[in-house]
Amino acid sequence: MMAQESDRPLRMGLIGGGGTGFIGKVHVTAATLDRQAELVAGAVSSNPDRARKAAVAMGIAPERAYRSFRELIDSEMARPVDDRIDFVSIATPNHTHREIACAALEAGFHVVCDKPMTISVSDAEAMIAAVNESRSVFALTHNYSGYPLVRQARELIAMNELGDLLAVRANYAQGWMHGMDPHETPTRGAWKSDPNRNGRAGSLGDVGTHAFHLVQFITGLTPSRLLSYMNSYSPHHELDDYGHAMLQFDRGATGMVTWSQVSHGRLNDLSIEVDGTKASLAWRQEQPNQLVVRALGQPIKIYERNPNAAYSLPSTVAACRLPGGHPEAFFEAFANVYRDAFTDMRRAIRGETIDSASALYPGVAAGADGVRFMQLCLASTNADAAWQSW
Amino acid sequence: MMAQESDRPLRMGLIGGGGTGFIGKVHVTAATLDRQAELVAGAVSSNPDRARKAAVAMGIAPERAYRSFRELIDSEMARPVDDRIDFVSIATPNHTHREIACAALEAGFHVVCDKPMTISVSDAEAMIAAVNESRSVFALTHNYSGYPLVRQARELIAMNELGDLLAVRANYAQGWMHGMDPHETPTRGAWKSDPNRNGRAGSLGDVGTHAFHLVQFITGLTPSRLLSYMNSYSPHHELDDYGHAMLQFDRGATGMVTWSQVSHGRLNDLSIEVDGTKASLAWRQEQPNQLVVRALGQPIKIYERNPNAAYSLPSTVAACRLPGGHPEAFFEAFANVYRDAFTDMRRAIRGETIDSASALYPGVAAGADGVRFMQLCLASTNADAAWQSW
Amino acid sequence: MMAQESDRPLRMGLIGGGGTGFIGKVHVTAATLDRQAELVAGAVSSNPDRARKAAVAMGIAPERAYRSFRELIDSEMARPVDDRIDFVSIATPNHTHREIACAALEAGFHVVCDKPMTISVSDAEAMIAAVNESRSVFALTHNYSGYPLVRQARELIAMNELGDLLAVRANYAQGWMHGMDPHETPTRGAWKSDPNRNGRAGSLGDVGTHAFHLVQFITGLTPSRLLSYMNSYSPHHELDDYGHAMLQFDRGATGMVTWSQVSHGRLNDLSIEVDGTKASLAWRQEQPNQLVVRALGQPIKIYERNPNAAYSLPSTVAACRLPGGHPEAFFEAFANVYRDAFTDMRRAIRGETIDSASALYPGVAAGADGVRFMQLCLASTNADAAWQSW
Amino acid sequence: MMAQESDRPLRMGLIGGGGTGFIGKVHVTAATLDRQAELVAGAVSSNPDRARKAAVAMGIAPERAYRSFRELIDSEMARPVDDRIDFVSIATPNHTHREIACAALEAGFHVVCDKPMTISVSDAEAMIAAVNESRSVFALTHNYSGYPLVRQARELIAMNELGDLLAVRANYAQGWMHGMDPHETPTRGAWKSDPNRNGRAGSLGDVGTHAFHLVQFITGLTPSRLLSYMNSYSPHHELDDYGHAMLQFDRGATGMVTWSQVSHGRLNDLSIEVDGTKASLAWRQEQPNQLVVRALGQPIKIYERNPNAAYSLPSTVAACRLPGGHPEAFFEAFANVYRDAFTDMRRAIRGETIDSASALYPGVAAGADGVRFMQLCLASTNADAAWQSW
Repeated sequence: MMAQESDRPLRMGLIGGGGTGFIGKVHVTAATLDRQAELVAGAVSSNPDRARKAAVAMGIAPERAYRSFRELIDSEMARPVDDRIDFVSIATPNHTHREIACAALEAGFHVVCDKPMTISVSDAEAMIAAVNESRSVFALTHNYSGYPLVRQARELIAMNELGDLLAVRANYAQGWMHGMDPHETPTRGAWKSDPNRNGRAGSLGDVGTHAFHLVQFITGLTPSRLLSYMNSYSPHHELDDYGHAMLQFDRGATGMVTWSQVSHGRLNDLSIEVDGTKASLAWRQEQPNQLVVRALGQPIKIYERNPNAAYSLPSTVAACRLPGGHPEAFFEAFANVYRDAFTDMRRAIRGETIDSASALYPGVAAGADGVRFMQLCLASTNADAAWQSW
Repeated sequence: MMAQESDRPLRMGLIGGGGTGFIGKVHVTAATLDRQAELVAGAVSSNPDRARKAAVAMGIAPERAYRSFRELIDSEMARPVDDRIDFVSIATPNHTHREIACAALEAGFHVVCDKPMTISVSDAEAMIAAVNESRSVFALTHNYSGYPLVRQARELIAMNELGDLLAVRANYAQGWMHGMDPHETPTRGAWKSDPNRNGRAGSLGDVGTHAFHLVQFITGLTPSRLLSYMNSYSPHHELDDYGHAMLQFDRGATGMVTWSQVSHGRLNDLSIEVDGTKASLAWRQEQPNQLVVRALGQPIKIYERNPNAAYSLPSTVAACRLPGGHPEAFFEAFANVYRDAFTDMRRAIRGETIDSASALYPGVAAGADGVRFMQLCLASTNADAAWQSW
Repeated sequence: MMAQESDRPLRMGLIGGGGTGFIGKVHVTAATLDRQAELVAGAVSSNPDRARKAAVAMGIAPERAYRSFRELIDSEMARPVDDRIDFVSIATPNHTHREIACAALEAGFHVVCDKPMTISVSDAEAMIAAVNESRSVFALTHNYSGYPLVRQARELIAMNELGDLLAVRANYAQGWMHGMDPHETPTRGAWKSDPNRNGRAGSLGDVGTHAFHLVQFITGLTPSRLLSYMNSYSPHHELDDYGHAMLQFDRGATGMVTWSQVSHGRLNDLSIEVDGTKASLAWRQEQPNQLVVRALGQPIKIYERNPNAAYSLPSTVAACRLPGGHPEAFFEAFANVYRDAFTDMRRAIRGETIDSASALYPGVAAGADGVRFMQLCLASTNADAAWQSW
Repeated sequence: MMAQESDRPLRMGLIGGGGTGFIGKVHVTAATLDRQAELVAGAVSSNPDRARKAAVAMGIAPERAYRSFRELIDSEMARPVDDRIDFVSIATPNHTHREIACAALEAGFHVVCDKPMTISVSDAEAMIAAVNESRSVFALTHNYSGYPLVRQARELIAMNELGDLLAVRANYAQGWMHGMDPHETPTRGAWKSDPNRNGRAGSLGDVGTHAFHLVQFITGLTPSRLLSYMNSYSPHHELDDYGHAMLQFDRGATGMVTWSQVSHGRLNDLSIEVDGTKASLAWRQEQPNQLVVRALGQPIKIYERNPNAAYSLPSTVAACRLPGGHPEAFFEAFANVYRDAFTDMRRAIRGETIDSASALYPGVAAGADGVRFMQLCLASTNADAAWQSW
């Protein structure tokens, strides 16, 4: 019975994520949080031996601990349909996303992919084409979009509770780069600071794209042009570690996106403020269970993540797992991207058509916008902050 | 090989938790968060039919979806040792904990039990005896003790960073009782307001015991006596919904524990402040990733949950899953109680002796203290706030 | 013309306040903030020489820089009516308030007096009698009642916006006592720690009475009984430096007042929370420009001090000097007690009757309640926390 | 004796400030807060009749309630030296500052002037010349520089506690423009929205210049170039009400200044963040008694306004009037600009030379920088956000 089949746990194959970073474990925890998925296969390192060992340490059966993503795809394809993976999660360096995602899509697997989606516009176009040619789900883990109150913000704006939007400001500040000794390989993965592999976007790709996505996700605005100026303050790399992008949007609104990895002592301080003609809102990732809404002459209103409150909108309620006051945080937000993608995967398994345009999880279009954002910021900086048409 | 055997996922049997409340799902999510356990059996309702249906809906195989906790214990005992559950999680009404826990311990299973441990001192003594006679782990889900910064607070005090302790204040405020229509059965489970089943402790048992445990867990202080006065403001029950307990501790310190379920608009506002001769600290559950430490003439210090910071103490680091700034919250704290209990369960599986006195997870002694706290608060209130010796 | 006469700046005589403490300067700044008064005379120390020098240093003409409060009263009485002081401000040790205030009232001067009003019930009764026999204004500087949002809280409750009151919690925490070397005289004035002069109330009188007054001012509740327990942690005095008082009020509400001067690093942390059947509120002195109101299922509402907001009630608006967002603080709140007292002084000067019962500034009745509060707390502590009828 | 003469209260003449706005009263309250000055003369409106009436209502003697600033200057000059005003405070529309200030300086009076100093570079140059030719004090009320913790921030940076500065972000958000009905004259003074009088800077002059000055005051950085883009969202004027300026500084640092008067519900939300190679700091005007300092791997440090704390630097301590925890706010900060200017006025009265370059109060150079900032922002916006050299 189709319904029964689509209710079973989905089978996950993890590609990358077996190294010293934390993002691989985040993918696994987020994917399995609701016990809708189980990790059954992996090619978790580009080093074949390390890949096998690390996969087994993650609880993957030795026969499905693969030495490369190619082996994973080929071997899984060789398994019976009802025993092969349903989807891959890609947690590899950014420049490898395109090849892996396209291969997985071509093999008929669903794909959950780390952000930024890739590092060039041509790669992004290739991925759009691959998704369009497939019948598969493609979800991009712009995980901050999974917070219940980010969704409340989005839905409030969609309901016109803020009126016409005037201005949006998003800031993403970290400070950990100050801890990087110029003589040691940064723990974040050497590829990240290597332009030959990761392209010329440093913090822009790491955190700037998250801030830009949050702007798009919450406001629904499309840029018409932008200018950017980036700095590279660190002595041990040549990539940006601080930058601003000034945006203009098609409906007359203004935007400013700021990113930094040299703001001493900031941990993961992503925040957004939106000004409209009827009200303004503010949200901050490090205190994600509150959303602040202000209107002239009225008390400041703080919406709490509280599925039982009448003010909580449907997309907010759907994103909650706990009653109000029992804080939910990073894992649960990340898991919401997975959960929404799983809903579409189950639709696909049932043979239904999926409509990624209406999906809450970020997809290939959002990914392409992120790549475009990076390219235009780089181009503008190279042109001494000249405007770039979107 | 023992080591290998003890590394496998532990097998969980859930007792209770299949109803409208959220605590059953919390147990499952917390237990499986790190993929150290899997839910394989359940007797999740006192209604046999509902128990079976709800268990299957939770993903339990129909043959292990039991109609009663007795059936669960007997049937699991009948399975081969390497295919039976390792532990039960008890999420049933408080007055049933003793019978279930004792039966499970007697059958050789480990036990994770909701708080309060039980409702009478004699029950508590029976449970202590049962644990002592067993070689099993008994963990009580005073889940707030699982927050990394609660453990930081405990360890700071143990290291004498606050000096001699003078005073501690713990408050636990909720407001949801205002939403209870006098004519409808409260959604929290009718047994909670029925003195014949749950005893005479209302909010005292629900939230007061959590606040008291937090005091004990963080400060390590033992009460010498207490006085208490409780109120019952709600028109639809006769149990306390607001109360204070004034405590004196054996080393001269003073304590105040306050609990409320009638503080309008408060969601789950548990907080604690500790004053010592060298410094004071403050922590609040709804913003759990920060711990505030103050000392005269020094800047206020805010410790963040950050496993990479040198200031993070070993028990804090061990309780983290994510880098700083990626907030962790309720599920992760709950899961830390499980994770620590699992460590001891694996020790027991390997045949090692477990030392519950040194364990970070709350055990049967903490549970008995909580029961005593409730009994003395009730006795003091009945005696118009007269002191009761501990 | 009377109206004209009553519009002139009022003439202030300062008694006490010329020493190392800051409260004398606060009185002068607060009284003159709106240029409704000018400091023209003073007997600012109990040491005659120091009194004269300190007064001149404060800008008082040498001929009105008196050696004692008796000389001040006699000499000012000897001046023509239109050139003598209108009021005295008493900033002397608490045990001297009665004698000075009664003498000043008898001489026909208005009185603004520091809190606590005095240290014994008999003194308080004498002061009540003296005020009643006079036609003068008596204002007690429970200055925290002057904050605009404290008045908003009071008015919201008077309008029944919180419904029936259930519980109130007030905390006043300071930590400066940790800085007192046991071998040196504390800078706060030796009389404060001397039971022979200041009575047996230490921190209770310093800060506890402020917290108790705030409870009364905001809620309008009258206690029916209380119990208290106080501690004396400091090695260099025998007075209380930490205490709790549990209160019951005549309309069924419960209260807890907590005071401390040994909470490390707390500066002047007075806060209050009130729970009602319709809503709850919270205010904190160190961030006085915001008042938090919560109600089940609604967003948290933060009222800002903003005289232009429609939500600001008349007594709030009247207490503001600046638009919202331009923070007002301690001096302005203190000045509001003076400003309200001045309004009544001008009425008296115009020959009108003053109705102190309806005045917003605290008067002799509030002062007597504060003295009673202290006496009952001391009696209860001596009786090991036994209830004392109000 | 000179010392005695210079200790007397300084005599203040107020020009402008008698209308519906609040800034005139702020000048008087701030100037007289410490009783170092008294208001003795005024020409408080451009309407002669209203000027006289409003001045008398402010307590000015009728014979010194002038009809125009010219009359004030001429009449005061005609009084004996020891009975004429010492200084004028200019609270008139910005385009009139130059004429009034130059006339006052030429007459030998000290000048305290509202910001922005004037509206054209040529005016600014004329004022610089007039100040240089005089022996008088010229102070500009960039009042936010008077906050004790703003001075702590400045001194921390001067001491190199932040290391080399990398980036600074200042934001000044208000929302009151949403309250302006397009059909009514805004209450803030019609001249403000009239380009013929006030120039083309709207919110840029109102609040943007404050934010820019705060950047300069705290960091000591000098811009090398800037680009800006401004918006005009309001239907009832053509001036900017929202804008960004991106700055580059001579030592390699980057800056972003953002201003808005259309951010719904924001009252007066000025904030600044500075990132250095050793630490970062953050301060917010609406909670001015705390300064946040962060450094990688260390607890967040919150400095409180506390003159008794060892961490408080000399310029901070000198700017405090109250112990920590007794909040100081807008009036006191404003008064600190006056108090520092008074110190220099007294020096001048004693015949000493004053060194405005080392003064903490903003002077004519800061004023000229503010005018240049406005002009370059306007020029850049006109050139579609092209860089402008400083």
